[in-house]
Amino acid sequence: MKTDFCKIDERLLREAKVVLRLAQHKNLTLVTAESCTAGLVAAVLSTAPGASETLHGGYITYTEANKTAVLDVPSALMEKCGTVCSDVARAMAEGALAHSPADVAIAITGVAGPEPDDFGNPVGLMYLAGARRGGETKVMRRDFPSQESGNLRYLAVLSAFDLARHMIEAA
Amino acid sequence: MKTDFCKIDERLLREAKVVLRLAQHKNLTLVTAESCTAGLVAAVLSTAPGASETLHGGYITYTEANKTAVLDVPSALMEKCGTVCSDVARAMAEGALAHSPADVAIAITGVAGPEPDDFGNPVGLMYLAGARRGGETKVMRRDFPSQESGNLRYLAVLSAFDLARHMIEAA
Repeated sequence: MKTDFCKIDERLLREAKVVLRLAQHKNLTLVTAESCTAGLVAAVLSTAPGASETLHGGYITYTEANKTAVLDVPSALMEKCGTVCSDVARAMAEGALAHSPADVAIAITGVAGPEPDDFGNPVGLMYLAGARRGGETKVMRRDFPSQESGNLRYLAVLSAFDLARHMIEAA
Repeated sequence: MKTDFCKIDERLLREAKVVLRLAQHKNLTLVTAESCTAGLVAAVLSTAPGASETLHGGYITYTEANKTAVLDVPSALMEKCGTVCSDVARAMAEGALAHSPADVAIAITGVAGPEPDDFGNPVGLMYLAGARRGGETKVMRRDFPSQESGNLRYLAVLSAFDLARHMIEAA
C-alpha cells in the first residue's frame, strides 16, 4: 500500500499539540478561517490529541464571493484593498467567530503565488488575525519573500499556530 | 530552507486537476464539507490550476456542535446514528450547498481512528455525499479496513475526488 501521501513535518505536529494543549488548559475551543492555506491549518491541528473536542473546524474561503457569503467580509472592502490586507484578515476572523460555537478564531489570507495578486501584493505576503469572544482582535503581517509554494505553506501554518498560541495565552 | 512539509502525492495532484478541469468545462463551482479529512480535500484541490475561480472553499466541521451550527445537521440525527452515517453525509453536503455560492458540494465523514467511534463504527468506514443545485444528492459508502491514518487520508481524498467527478459528469 501507499506510504503517507502527506507526511506532515515533525515540528508542525509538535506545534499543533502545543496549541491544542494550551487551549484545553484554558478550556477554549478553536475555529480557523483560511484563504491561502485552503484548509491546511485545520488539517494539521486535527492530528493533535483531543482535537475532536477542541477544534470545532474551520472555514475555507478561497474565492471573494465565498468570503462574503460565508464570513460576511464586505465586498466593498475587497474592491478597495483586495483579499490580502489587514482588514480582510480581521473580518475573516470575526466572521468565523460569529458563525461558529468556538471561543477563538484564527484567520489567514496571503499571496500563495506563483504570481503577485491583482493589487500588486508580492508572493509571500500574508495577513493573519486572531479573534476572541469578548476580546480584541489581533492582526499580524508576515512577509516571506522568495519562497517556494511548499515552504510558504509551511511558514503560513507555523505563523497561524504562533498567533493561536498568543491568542490563547492572552485569554 | 525546509523542503515541502506536505508533499502531496502525484496521483492526487493529477486527480485534482481532472476534477477542476471537468468543473471548468461545465462551468460549475465547488465547495467541500469535511469532517474526518479536516480540510485536506479542499487543500489538495486548491493546488490545481484555476482553483481560485472554481473552488469556492469548504467547511471543516470537526465537532458535532459545529456540524449543527455551520451546516444545519440536526443534532437529533447525530444522537441516533452518530456522525458517521449516510444521513449525516447527505445533510453536510446539502448544508454546504445552502450556505455557499457553489454549484456542487462534496461532503465526507468517517472514522479516522485510531479507535472505533462511540457507535461502534470501525476505523476506515466513510460516507460521502455529493449535492448539486436542483439535482438529487448522491451518497456513497466506503470501507477501508486495516489502514494507517496516512493511507486513510489518501483514500478519503481520492474517494471525494471520485464522487466530485461523478457529480460533475452527471450534471
